[in-house]
Amino acid sequence: MHTLFQTNDSKMVLLVLDGLGGLSMEPTGPTELEAAHTPHLDQLASEGTLGQITPIRHGITPGSGPAHLALFGYDPIKTKVGRGIMEASGVGLTVGTTDVAARGNLCTMDSTGLIIDRRAGRISSKNAIPLIEQLGLLSIPDAEFKIRHVKEHRFTIVMSGSGLSAEIVDTDPQHTGMPAPSAVARSKSATRSVHLINQWIDAAQLSLADEKEANMVTLRGFSSDPQLPSFKDMYALHACSIAVYPMYRGLSQLAGMHTISFDGDSPSDQFSVFCTERANYDFFFVHIKETDSCGEDGDFDGKVAAIEAVDRALPELLHGHPDVLVVTGDHSTPARMRSHSWHPVPLLLWAPHTVREDTATAFGESNCATGGLGSLTAMDVLPLMLAHVGRLAKFGA
Amino acid sequence: MHTLFQTNDSKMVLLVLDGLGGLSMEPTGPTELEAAHTPHLDQLASEGTLGQITPIRHGITPGSGPAHLALFGYDPIKTKVGRGIMEASGVGLTVGTTDVAARGNLCTMDSTGLIIDRRAGRISSKNAIPLIEQLGLLSIPDAEFKIRHVKEHRFTIVMSGSGLSAEIVDTDPQHTGMPAPSAVARSKSATRSVHLINQWIDAAQLSLADEKEANMVTLRGFSSDPQLPSFKDMYALHACSIAVYPMYRGLSQLAGMHTISFDGDSPSDQFSVFCTERANYDFFFVHIKETDSCGEDGDFDGKVAAIEAVDRALPELLHGHPDVLVVTGDHSTPARMRSHSWHPVPLLLWAPHTVREDTATAFGESNCATGGLGSLTAMDVLPLMLAHVGRLAKFGA
Repeated sequence: MHTLFQTNDSKMVLLVLDGLGGLSMEPTGPTELEAAHTPHLDQLASEGTLGQITPIRHGITPGSGPAHLALFGYDPIKTKVGRGIMEASGVGLTVGTTDVAARGNLCTMDSTGLIIDRRAGRISSKNAIPLIEQLGLLSIPDAEFKIRHVKEHRFTIVMSGSGLSAEIVDTDPQHTGMPAPSAVARSKSATRSVHLINQWIDAAQLSLADEKEANMVTLRGFSSDPQLPSFKDMYALHACSIAVYPMYRGLSQLAGMHTISFDGDSPSDQFSVFCTERANYDFFFVHIKETDSCGEDGDFDGKVAAIEAVDRALPELLHGHPDVLVVTGDHSTPARMRSHSWHPVPLLLWAPHTVREDTATAFGESNCATGGLGSLTAMDVLPLMLAHVGRLAKFGA
Repeated sequence: MHTLFQTNDSKMVLLVLDGLGGLSMEPTGPTELEAAHTPHLDQLASEGTLGQITPIRHGITPGSGPAHLALFGYDPIKTKVGRGIMEASGVGLTVGTTDVAARGNLCTMDSTGLIIDRRAGRISSKNAIPLIEQLGLLSIPDAEFKIRHVKEHRFTIVMSGSGLSAEIVDTDPQHTGMPAPSAVARSKSATRSVHLINQWIDAAQLSLADEKEANMVTLRGFSSDPQLPSFKDMYALHACSIAVYPMYRGLSQLAGMHTISFDGDSPSDQFSVFCTERANYDFFFVHIKETDSCGEDGDFDGKVAAIEAVDRALPELLHGHPDVLVVTGDHSTPARMRSHSWHPVPLLLWAPHTVREDTATAFGESNCATGGLGSLTAMDVLPLMLAHVGRLAKFGA
């Protein structure tokens, strides 16, 4: 397929409402998307075509990492991108090709060394920042550690040195009442890395020993640069991301997208970035987190409101005249389940000149299940977008 | 799956309307197939079931070669069949397993050696045939060349000799105002072939030097026999093709189908061949080109008329009592786009005794998108046909 990609001046927008897919709260009731008042999305549905996507495989509930990788056209089974590298990239830490990154938590231990709060009581950022700065001063022989605060109890850490490996088991026990274990190697190749990491953890514990809120750290998602082929290499696309959350900024950066910084964090703010940056890129990944957060909280009405907020702002996006616009989710997060789920994800494809319209006149799960695009996998989305703007040449004679 | 194929005396018909899938000319309007008055196809749709197929992958616009290979059940990504071998086989040139075939154009050069018409002004067949006969007399040491006129400026050529390879770049520059390049090897294995081909091109140029309409040739689609497993080997089917155009006759021949010669070129002529040859084969591939040609010309009404002509003649086909009949296209060729496209292709499967009917009562893109077969790939069509006539045994205990 590689040779089929061709360039032109078309503008492509992939608008991901995280966890968009939902469930009704009672039999025959509407899902979150169906309950939402979305005149603009419905207009796009009338003019475009619908379908539903399976992020990974039928029945598989994806994390946001693999679900986004699939939307970007990477095989989510074969492509492993760890949490550490995603978050570190997302907060702007430079991660070299031989470095190891991890996601960290500040946590609280009792006097016997058992963890009593895995998130240090969701310590405020204000109180956490000085602690992270303190940890930034730690020095371990033969390795360099960079650390950056993310939000509240969250931080990321990057270790540089020679002969490192990310084959390391998480040190977060996932339950309270247990000691924070030392790092353990998954394979022999990580023996040296584990030795260095554990020195750093010991130093961190010592440094925080007298703190009340947070006196310990846990580390998880040890990972190194997956060296993904970039959007430029894969699709000849100059791509950017318009995302608020670090993880999605990191993920798109790993895919070779330029991460745009902007003021504000509303859909409206994000859509106006598309309009101002329109000339500078071919492909725009816009990520909305709120839908997923509300789903995780079991907040049906909040998720409805988050979808409606996107819909209200949509004219600002359309003002920038995308040549193809896909609105979808990375996975379903039904408020009823308070978690990610395996259910298919609504897909709307709108392309003014090239789409085959179907008969749907509103964007929702039921219409998507009988939409003109049928049932696809998430990996099919990007080729379809490219096709609709003439960026895929004919295959074979 | 190989062991599942079983034989019986059922008759299978795959009716391909080339480029069948379409688009509406304006929002909410009908596609070509939906606009056409097709009472017989609609009756089959009522009695059978519909679906839509993706020829290669979502978003991929296929050439007719790979699109047909997929309908025949070959993996269109892995199976490479060059233009030269398809056309040479189609016009009845014997191509040995070590030969190299190419498609040729008569063209016109100016006195400085630049191509001014890549198709020699679409020279008439009457005027082209003597030139091709003249080229047939050329003799090159260490190789044998067979040449056959196809139509107007088109011909095919087959080179026989020892140690040949088809790894040769096209000599057609695809634009006027450029010299016709010599053949160039894609890999070292073709050095000898290129040396022989260029001797032949030089001789051809000399032979045509004093001609006004066509004084040069270009060659493209260098290819050798892909040695496809035959329908007999793959499916235990004795198969034939009822096709007018050389390329489709060639392609079906490469798949081990017998190419039936017949008088006339209308759907009615083709369908009556099915009735007369019914006893001699298990599987009949019937190819209609007109739908694609009209699509390529942007002739919506012409494509509608071509579909209606097939529908009018359909009773003649049904008169031969096929046990399973599939009506579909190899790809979409919307008149609105004047080209092949990636849009899904309508699929109708009719089998009097074994089909699970869906609710559709007319054959068209919208109904196909919600049809009982769902969205499939083209490679799924042949197994489905086999199943509906009891030619696939149970898999596993």
